[in-house]
Amino acid sequence: MIDMHSHFLPMISREEAFSVDAARAPWLAVEPGASQGQIMVGDRPFRPVYQALWDPAFRVAELDQQGVAMQIVCATPIMFGYGWEPARAADWAARMNDHALAFCRAHPQRLKALAQVPLQDLELACAEATRAKAAGCIGVQIGNHLGDKDLDHEQLVDFLIHCAEQAIPVLVHPWDMMGGNRMQKWMLPWLVAMPAETQLGMLSLILSGAMERIPASLKICFAHGGGAFAFLLGRVDNAWKHRDIVRQDCPRLPSEYARRFHVDCAVFDPGALRLLVDVMGDDRVMLGSDYPFPLGEQRIGALVREAAFLDAAQQRRILQGNAASFFGLPAATPLLQESTP
Amino acid sequence: MIDMHSHFLPMISREEAFSVDAARAPWLAVEPGASQGQIMVGDRPFRPVYQALWDPAFRVAELDQQGVAMQIVCATPIMFGYGWEPARAADWAARMNDHALAFCRAHPQRLKALAQVPLQDLELACAEATRAKAAGCIGVQIGNHLGDKDLDHEQLVDFLIHCAEQAIPVLVHPWDMMGGNRMQKWMLPWLVAMPAETQLGMLSLILSGAMERIPASLKICFAHGGGAFAFLLGRVDNAWKHRDIVRQDCPRLPSEYARRFHVDCAVFDPGALRLLVDVMGDDRVMLGSDYPFPLGEQRIGALVREAAFLDAAQQRRILQGNAASFFGLPAATPLLQESTP
Repeated sequence: MIDMHSHFLPMISREEAFSVDAARAPWLAVEPGASQGQIMVGDRPFRPVYQALWDPAFRVAELDQQGVAMQIVCATPIMFGYGWEPARAADWAARMNDHALAFCRAHPQRLKALAQVPLQDLELACAEATRAKAAGCIGVQIGNHLGDKDLDHEQLVDFLIHCAEQAIPVLVHPWDMMGGNRMQKWMLPWLVAMPAETQLGMLSLILSGAMERIPASLKICFAHGGGAFAFLLGRVDNAWKHRDIVRQDCPRLPSEYARRFHVDCAVFDPGALRLLVDVMGDDRVMLGSDYPFPLGEQRIGALVREAAFLDAAQQRRILQGNAASFFGLPAATPLLQESTP
Repeated sequence: MIDMHSHFLPMISREEAFSVDAARAPWLAVEPGASQGQIMVGDRPFRPVYQALWDPAFRVAELDQQGVAMQIVCATPIMFGYGWEPARAADWAARMNDHALAFCRAHPQRLKALAQVPLQDLELACAEATRAKAAGCIGVQIGNHLGDKDLDHEQLVDFLIHCAEQAIPVLVHPWDMMGGNRMQKWMLPWLVAMPAETQLGMLSLILSGAMERIPASLKICFAHGGGAFAFLLGRVDNAWKHRDIVRQDCPRLPSEYARRFHVDCAVFDPGALRLLVDVMGDDRVMLGSDYPFPLGEQRIGALVREAAFLDAAQQRRILQGNAASFFGLPAATPLLQESTP
């Protein structure tokens, strides 16, 4: 199995974070030798986490138990730093990407990294994506928006075009979730707003006509099964057919663009997975667990392995083959062997 | 067929609207005798509409063509008036409800009305719900939130308890959509934010524990197939299982509450409908078209009638029986006959 959606956060100290942005840079509060800790923002606990987040040896031991041959790690979105002035964000992104590569270095056949970029500055973002690729990152992760700029904004479209031209695969992750005051409890921003953010990102690319300008070679994947996209695509098609302002910038039926996108399979329900595979295609869904967070798939790949409606070839594609193809991983290396838990 | 989700807007004049709230009260701009018009808010066009919205005779002729035996009409959400001071909103709601009853009066076997209420004031809202029921409305429609108050807010829970105690069925409709500046084009508020609003309403009732206080007798239906709820329920269950702050106020697995809710079937895709029926149960999904708007089902009931995965008994339940039961309509009256287009 190749798990293409997992997060890390390096052992950033309070001092290091405060030297960048005392209010917004994340750091890790972990007692020496402890296996549990907290992601902190300023002096506020953000999320309880455990050793797999920062310790690659611990992580690989868990991957062994889970039967995961390779895992692709990327930043925890709170590390993005899109709100900072560009030079500071570029410096931070490069530092985080070096951390990510160091995280993977001890287990080069088991761990691969996606880079983060200073998305608020097109030139710096493109430069860091290219530099990180040369340094060993196998793709980039970006947030689904930048303040009021959604993925249809020229700056973000141009970044995606850069990635297409440089053959850099892109994972789009929801972050900075809409809803504000109305979602203060029960992780509602993760349960309601993240799937809406993801759908908004996909529809922004489709309905704006941006997908007509972006090269078909772009490899772009949306996290969490594309959020609410697959289930609501019928509503979007219906609106496109019957309301002029929906189709004004989009020449094709929205569902025709679904095959330009990949998604992970982190949907946690067999019926949802079946719909997702039907809508996106069994060549466009990839194992992604959201490990090592509590909202991730705790038995990585179990939903796919236990899906009776998928035949063995489809399961192999979703668990491994699609990600190998998406990220251009050599299909013959031992790391792509099937492992069993 | 009984279509339980459709909208009307009475022939409110500019003068009448401006006397209530020049900036926010809706009115209809229709040339005398014209079949097309605009919903206006202030002097801004809000939405192009056609005669079925305001003319019951025209509507019933369309229902004949569509084979719809009975249609339940409710306010277009822009009529809610939740932002006004309570007495003004109560007066407006009573006036709109009288319009709704007048709209149905010429075709009492074909058209039934849901009331609107001044939700910003619990006492007035309960009083209007009770008055409207006595006057002939067969239920109420409410928006899914009131500013920052979602459905878990004590005031809204108490209103729902009133409806349970008085046997008043409730349709919850998304409105006043989140997302703000980021959804200015392509009807994104209707495509992204409405389904998120609906899911937020359902999860606010579940995760807050409010469903433990609300009598099981409450009949409550969420529009547009419950928005993103059914597809994302697996994500919510997974979060509840693995993250303490998700389950802190909710004693049962979130999916256990799904059977306390009804939804309409306005999802526009066979795969989405199948998932919806699997998650909610074939006794909890009801025909609802969102007529007469372009984002509604243009051939009312076609998605259900053409769903090969539903047997004839299931189709009958969804097209008719469930709504008859939900609204307490006498099952033996001619209006419940099957019609064919």
